[in-house]
Amino acid sequence: MIATGTGEDARLRLRTPASVDIFTRILTHGPIGRIDVGRQTGLSQAAVTKTVAPLLLDGIVAVDRPLAGAAPAGAAPGRPVHPLRVVPSARLVLGVKVNPDEVIGVATGMTADILHVLRRPLGSTSPAAVIEAVAGVAEELGVLLGERAARLIGVGVAVSGDVDAATGIVRDSPLLGWRGVPLAHPLATRLGVPVRVDNDVRALTIAEHWFGVGRDSGSFAVVTIGSGIGCGLYLNDDVVSGAHGVAGELGHLPLASLDAICVCGRRGCVEAVASSGAVLRAVRAATDAPLLTLAEAAGLAREGVPGAMAAFDRAGTAIGAALAIVANLTGPDTVLVAGEGMQEFELYERTIRRTFAAHAFGAAADCLLVTRAHTFEDWARGAAASVIRAAVRQEF
Amino acid sequence: MIATGTGEDARLRLRTPASVDIFTRILTHGPIGRIDVGRQTGLSQAAVTKTVAPLLLDGIVAVDRPLAGAAPAGAAPGRPVHPLRVVPSARLVLGVKVNPDEVIGVATGMTADILHVLRRPLGSTSPAAVIEAVAGVAEELGVLLGERAARLIGVGVAVSGDVDAATGIVRDSPLLGWRGVPLAHPLATRLGVPVRVDNDVRALTIAEHWFGVGRDSGSFAVVTIGSGIGCGLYLNDDVVSGAHGVAGELGHLPLASLDAICVCGRRGCVEAVASSGAVLRAVRAATDAPLLTLAEAAGLAREGVPGAMAAFDRAGTAIGAALAIVANLTGPDTVLVAGEGMQEFELYERTIRRTFAAHAFGAAADCLLVTRAHTFEDWARGAAASVIRAAVRQEF
Repeated sequence: MIATGTGEDARLRLRTPASVDIFTRILTHGPIGRIDVGRQTGLSQAAVTKTVAPLLLDGIVAVDRPLAGAAPAGAAPGRPVHPLRVVPSARLVLGVKVNPDEVIGVATGMTADILHVLRRPLGSTSPAAVIEAVAGVAEELGVLLGERAARLIGVGVAVSGDVDAATGIVRDSPLLGWRGVPLAHPLATRLGVPVRVDNDVRALTIAEHWFGVGRDSGSFAVVTIGSGIGCGLYLNDDVVSGAHGVAGELGHLPLASLDAICVCGRRGCVEAVASSGAVLRAVRAATDAPLLTLAEAAGLAREGVPGAMAAFDRAGTAIGAALAIVANLTGPDTVLVAGEGMQEFELYERTIRRTFAAHAFGAAADCLLVTRAHTFEDWARGAAASVIRAAVRQEF
Repeated sequence: MIATGTGEDARLRLRTPASVDIFTRILTHGPIGRIDVGRQTGLSQAAVTKTVAPLLLDGIVAVDRPLAGAAPAGAAPGRPVHPLRVVPSARLVLGVKVNPDEVIGVATGMTADILHVLRRPLGSTSPAAVIEAVAGVAEELGVLLGERAARLIGVGVAVSGDVDAATGIVRDSPLLGWRGVPLAHPLATRLGVPVRVDNDVRALTIAEHWFGVGRDSGSFAVVTIGSGIGCGLYLNDDVVSGAHGVAGELGHLPLASLDAICVCGRRGCVEAVASSGAVLRAVRAATDAPLLTLAEAAGLAREGVPGAMAAFDRAGTAIGAALAIVANLTGPDTVLVAGEGMQEFELYERTIRRTFAAHAFGAAADCLLVTRAHTFEDWARGAAASVIRAAVRQEF
C-alpha cells in the first residue's frame, strides 16, 4: 500500500473533450498564451477561459509573469502576455519498467520530469515475483515522496510484448514468458492507487509525443535499438496499437539474410543480425573469442578488426533498411532512433544513414532521423507518461 | 462545362460533427435502425432524430419498410424496426482515373454504385492534354446522366504519385512526368462543378473503407499489384497520408535481391521483381523469348517451364514479405490484395501466403488476407468515393 495521506482525491477533472484538448495543449506546449491555446486547439477564447478557471483554482495550471514586450501575432500591441503553464508538482506519477532481471521505477511530476529513481534486481519473472517487486519499488518511491504522495494520480507499468492497456492484462510477453497475466488489478489492489499497464515501446512513444521530440510532430516513430529492436508509431493523432495487439515489430521484419536465425525462430529478422546480442555473437564468432563483452567487441571494431567491423556493418545495414521501410510505408516527419547501446552507435550510424538514404523513396527521405542514447530510466518515464495521458484523457 | 440544369444546389448539408457521424453510419452501414445508429456512433436518439429529419425531407435518406419480426436488442419486443438507408441516386458523383495512356471515368450514386463507365485514350500526358481528356470524359458522362446531372456533387480525379488533395495540386507524379501541376482548379473552372484530386491508392482505400472490405474494419490496408505495387493504409480512423506526401510505398521496400534494379533507380525494390513488367522481363530473359506477352509468360509458368515458374515465385516471395511487413509494422485486421493482373494470381498466391506466414510475427499473422481481381474501373470508383467522403465531411 502507498500511504497517500489524507485520502484527498488527486484525480484530474476535465469535463468535456474541449477541456481535454485545452489542458493537453497547455501541458505539452506551455508556457503558452491564451490566444495561442485557442488558435492551436481551434476553440474559442470563452472555452479556454472556462476550462482554465477551475484549473487555476486547483493549482495545476498557473499564470506566468508577463513576458515583457513579447506580444503574439494578433494580440493588441504592447498588451502583456500572461502565459499559462502546468505546475509539474501539482500531481505526481510513478512509472515502473519491468525487465527480466530488474525493475526500474521513477517518480515524476505532470510533465514526466523525474524526481526519484530506484532500481531493484528481480530474482524470477514469475507473475507473483514481478508483482512483489513492482509493488515494492512503488512503495519505496511512495516513502521517498512522503506527504507529496497525496498528489499521486497513479502508477504506470511498462512491459515488453502484447499488452491490453484497457484491461491491464499482459496477453503475451515472450521476454517474461507470460501469457494472459493480469497485472493492473492485483497491483492496484495491493497499492491502493490506480495502475495502468502498457507496452513499453508504446509508453515510450507517448512520452516522446507529449514531452519529447514528437511534441510538434504530426506523425512520428520511435525506434529502439538494444537487446531487442522495437518501434512505436504515432499516426493520425494516436499511437498505432495493431488490431491483434502487434504493431511496430521492426525487429522482426525480414530484412536480413535468410541464414540468420532469430531468437523468435524465424529467419532473416532484423534482430537476428542487429540486436546487441546478435552483434556480440557475430564478433565473438569472427574473432574466435567466446568470452568477449559488447564493449570489447566495439573496441575491436574501432581498432579496425575486419570481423568485428563487418558485424556492426551488417547491423547498421539492417537497421537502415528498416528505417527506410518505416519512412516509405508510414511517412513520419521525424524518427527518433533511441539506442540502449548508443555508446556503440557511432560504429554503425554512418551505415544506417547511408542505407536509409539508399532506400528512402522520394520525399520520404526528408524524414528527420534524430539519434539519442537512452537509458532504462527512459522506459520507466514512458510508463509514467502513459499514466499522465490516460489521466488527462479521463480514461483513469 | 457539365450542364447541371436548374442550378439547384446539390451540396450536402450536415451542420455538426455529430450529423456527419450519423450520416456516415447510415451511408456505410444502412439499412440500419435508429437505435443502432445511436449506439454505434455513441450519440443520443435525440441527436439521430434531429439529424435525420432534414435528410428525410431532402430525400437523401429514406425509411425502409419495417422488417417484420426483427427487433434489435434493446428495442421493445414486437415493435417494428424502420431501418434508415441512404438513397444512392439522390446525389451523383463522377470519378476519373488518369493513366499514362487513357482516362477511365465512372458516374456513381452516393454509395459508389457505378451507373456509367467511359474509357478514352490519352495521346499525351501533358497537363493540357490530360485536363482536356478528363473534362471530355466528365462532360460525356454528364450528357449520359441527362437531367440527373443536376444532382452532381462533384468530380473526383485519381492520379498516381504525391497529390495534395487540399489544394488540388499534383506535387509529383513520375508516371505522368508531372511536378507541381494544378489540376483541380482548371478542371473546376472548365466543368462548373467542384473537383477533388486525390492519390489513386488513397482514393481506392477510401472506397474500400466506406463501401468495401474495410466497412467494419478498424485498421486495414489495400495492396495493389500490377504494373506498379502500391499500398493504402487506414489506421487510427483515417487514411495514412505521410508527412511529406509519401506513404504506402510498398513497391519500393528493399526486399528483393540488391542486383534487381528498379525503374525508380534504386536496388532491391519489391517492384524490381514483382511488378507485372518485371515478371515479364524475367520470363523473357529466362526463356530467351523477347516478344512474349504476360499472358504467354503465365502460360509457360502454368506448363511448368522452370525459368517462368522461378520469375513468378520470386515475385510472390517479395510480395509475401512485403505483406508481412505491413502486418508486423502496422497490425491491420484485414489486408485486401487487389491485383490488376489477378488472372495470373494463382501462379504466386501460394508463395505469397507461405512467405507471409513465415515472416508474420505472432498475432500479426491473424490478419485476414483477402485477394481480389480489380479493374481500372475500381480506380475511377475510388476517385468517386474520395468526392463522396469529402462531401460528407463538409470539406467540399
